[in-house]
Amino acid sequence: MIDLRPVLFVIGILLSVLAAAMLVPAAVDLGYGNPDWQVFLASAAVTVFVGVSLILTTRTGWEGFNIRQAFLMTALAWVAIAFFGALPLVFSRLGLGFTDAVFEAMSGVTTTGSTVMSGLNDAPPGILIWRAGLQWLGGVGIIVVALAVLPVLRVGGMQMFRVEAFDADKVLPRAAQLAAGIAGIYIGLTLLIALGYGAFGMSGFDAIAHAMTSIATGGYGNYDSSFGQWTAPGIHYVGALAMIAGSLPFVQYLRAVRGDVLALARDRQIQWFLGILLAAAAVACLSIWDNGHLPWPDAIRHGLFNVVSLMTGTGYASADFGAWGSFIMVQALILMFIGGCAGSTTCGIKIFRFQIVYAEAQVQVRRLMHPNGVFIPYYNRRPIPDRVAQAVMGFFFVYMMSFAVLAMLLGLLGLDVITAISGAATAISNVGPGLGPVIGPDGNFAPLPDPAKWLLCFGMLLGRLELFTVLVLFAPSFWRG
Amino acid sequence: MIDLRPVLFVIGILLSVLAAAMLVPAAVDLGYGNPDWQVFLASAAVTVFVGVSLILTTRTGWEGFNIRQAFLMTALAWVAIAFFGALPLVFSRLGLGFTDAVFEAMSGVTTTGSTVMSGLNDAPPGILIWRAGLQWLGGVGIIVVALAVLPVLRVGGMQMFRVEAFDADKVLPRAAQLAAGIAGIYIGLTLLIALGYGAFGMSGFDAIAHAMTSIATGGYGNYDSSFGQWTAPGIHYVGALAMIAGSLPFVQYLRAVRGDVLALARDRQIQWFLGILLAAAAVACLSIWDNGHLPWPDAIRHGLFNVVSLMTGTGYASADFGAWGSFIMVQALILMFIGGCAGSTTCGIKIFRFQIVYAEAQVQVRRLMHPNGVFIPYYNRRPIPDRVAQAVMGFFFVYMMSFAVLAMLLGLLGLDVITAISGAATAISNVGPGLGPVIGPDGNFAPLPDPAKWLLCFGMLLGRLELFTVLVLFAPSFWRG
Repeated sequence: MIDLRPVLFVIGILLSVLAAAMLVPAAVDLGYGNPDWQVFLASAAVTVFVGVSLILTTRTGWEGFNIRQAFLMTALAWVAIAFFGALPLVFSRLGLGFTDAVFEAMSGVTTTGSTVMSGLNDAPPGILIWRAGLQWLGGVGIIVVALAVLPVLRVGGMQMFRVEAFDADKVLPRAAQLAAGIAGIYIGLTLLIALGYGAFGMSGFDAIAHAMTSIATGGYGNYDSSFGQWTAPGIHYVGALAMIAGSLPFVQYLRAVRGDVLALARDRQIQWFLGILLAAAAVACLSIWDNGHLPWPDAIRHGLFNVVSLMTGTGYASADFGAWGSFIMVQALILMFIGGCAGSTTCGIKIFRFQIVYAEAQVQVRRLMHPNGVFIPYYNRRPIPDRVAQAVMGFFFVYMMSFAVLAMLLGLLGLDVITAISGAATAISNVGPGLGPVIGPDGNFAPLPDPAKWLLCFGMLLGRLELFTVLVLFAPSFWRG
Repeated sequence: MIDLRPVLFVIGILLSVLAAAMLVPAAVDLGYGNPDWQVFLASAAVTVFVGVSLILTTRTGWEGFNIRQAFLMTALAWVAIAFFGALPLVFSRLGLGFTDAVFEAMSGVTTTGSTVMSGLNDAPPGILIWRAGLQWLGGVGIIVVALAVLPVLRVGGMQMFRVEAFDADKVLPRAAQLAAGIAGIYIGLTLLIALGYGAFGMSGFDAIAHAMTSIATGGYGNYDSSFGQWTAPGIHYVGALAMIAGSLPFVQYLRAVRGDVLALARDRQIQWFLGILLAAAAVACLSIWDNGHLPWPDAIRHGLFNVVSLMTGTGYASADFGAWGSFIMVQALILMFIGGCAGSTTCGIKIFRFQIVYAEAQVQVRRLMHPNGVFIPYYNRRPIPDRVAQAVMGFFFVYMMSFAVLAMLLGLLGLDVITAISGAATAISNVGPGLGPVIGPDGNFAPLPDPAKWLLCFGMLLGRLELFTVLVLFAPSFWRG
């Protein structure tokens, strides 16, 4: 049996933090004279009650985590926050059903951005800031987990990103220091982005909410038309930069701030990320312009914005890109899988895995020609350990299988082909909108049947936690011995 | 520089064989009183002239093959046969354009079965038997290459399937014996299938032509409605069995014939193949029946036939499965990638690669829980060498990348999303029809723009030769020193 006490203890702490966070939308609604502030207060009360109860009942009798507890804690933390984060959505005057509320909260905390809500333009400000807040917390949460937990768990090759601070013997003080540094940078970038949005004409409230969901590469917006709400090109360019900022490894920001100013420029993962991004954006812009959909300044702006939004898994749309021809649609489906850098807020397969598998494939082509030669694949100028290469390639396979199974199950539930395929892709890669008339950038997930929403929730969780963190819980041997 | 003489020598031999094969449709057309027999005779004359010239000019001054020559020979052989095999299609009274003729011949010799021809019901018998013959030759050709060449080249993990006969020092006599054995079984199965088709009411000509394209899992038929031409359930069941027969490792048939009667039953690859096939067919049948598209005996027959046809990459259709709901469409797209067993006539990723990556993924999950444990993945009760596991996983990645790039390029050429995505999948997996109104089972590849047809030709070649055999030719280091 697994001793659940340390797991529940940490979840108790996280729920207490979540309850405290609910006071922010309560204050916002109170400030705007909206009665929904009571909803947030009530939700906070329930959440803090459960959280503190968990802390009090589990705080003694255990010492640290073993590996199974760490897996269970990571997966359960996201589930618990989604369920308790859904409370205000159930209780508010929007009156979302239980399934819809959990879907919306799971989509928030996994920084996916798929939404079942329409009529956002008239939604209470508290709810809007709560959706943004869930994504913002989910974003910083995954950065810390990617730095502190996943490398220890060796999930999908993440052991490449061990940071010494977390390996040292005196782990806590330095780990806390690192986490605080990351949080500081995260807050700083959020403010910077909000200032940028404000400078080009967003209201203060919108600027803050969208800065939170931009840096989290989350994608929730305050308007049904997403970034189509604004016509100022500056807002779209700030948005593109903000999403890129959220897609870079935060540990490199920390290095840059601490004096190694070229840390970002030197990172091979960032170089590839920007290279792929700009190449994809260039082809997209040309295709949009060439097909006569938009004049070239708009083609560049919308092409760049939407490519960044899809590849980083943010999910904002500045227009209905489904109308720009089939290349854009096919490219959209493929971009969704790529994602950003490890240790960022993005999801998807992630750049470093492409780099590792590419290095492996290159070595294999050489081996084909020289069967007796010795060739070693490199990543960031260091040889790639066999274990890491295997983990990364296993990740690829399981990613594709999870996508295929999810798409088939959605098909079985009666969703049309484009909705089933793009819905599976958008969930597992935490992007947001899918393709086609139902869940495309102009659509909404509300019309889907409830079982499809639960499947998508599972897909989002799977994708957010690098698959294996969740799948390992389904191995019978996890629960044995 | 690579010495091209041995490469051209082998291609000369193959072209001479191809020219001899052209005499069969010439005889058929002559028998039916069709003037097209002259076309085949003329094409045979051109082909044998080129073939014999190559043989005569390259037959001396070299000794055996090195690895580069083997790669080049394998890839060029398929290209040469497609180009010369296209001659009768250009010259016949059908008057196919050059692009269409090469597309049709490449689709034939790679056992894909995508067609640009309509009005098959009135096509001259010589042309019909020539299309079937290209697939039949392509089918036995790939079995021999998979047994004799690919394991030596170590392409995509194929070194797992080395047969001792080809490794021995006195390679030629035993290799020739093995090849003759395979050919004998191939011919025997073809006749058996033809008898089966005939027993349920096919004409002799149709029975032979369809037996040839069934065992080759090719998919060319003599009618625009493919297997929808017949209503006798027996024909569809014989067809399903025939396609399954073509998907099993032929070396196991040989073992069975030589006395080891349980060789087929013991092969883990066959067990998985049939397991996946029956599971997929069961869900498909249930879905077709449950949606009220067909009564249950027909649902079982068509569900089974079409799942077998897609998964084995044959590409026959007994009905327009696009009309049976979205699950069938999503499943079709995924089944296309799977394929049959290594050493068969099927294409696709192939079962053994799924088994190897599954074994790897299983070991990885165990490693996650026990970081210091030693776990070894097994295939067919033998440990999987690291090199093989890496080659298989590299193959997966390159397969997905090739698919993604091909789909995007087709999108750039203006094909709609479903056509671009399913076209890329059907080409690279050598299936035949795609999905949707254009290239779906009721459609045809003729309306596609010429550049799309050339891209698809390249995709078919790539898929047929296990990707790396072709891709290695694009590595600059292949041509250097």
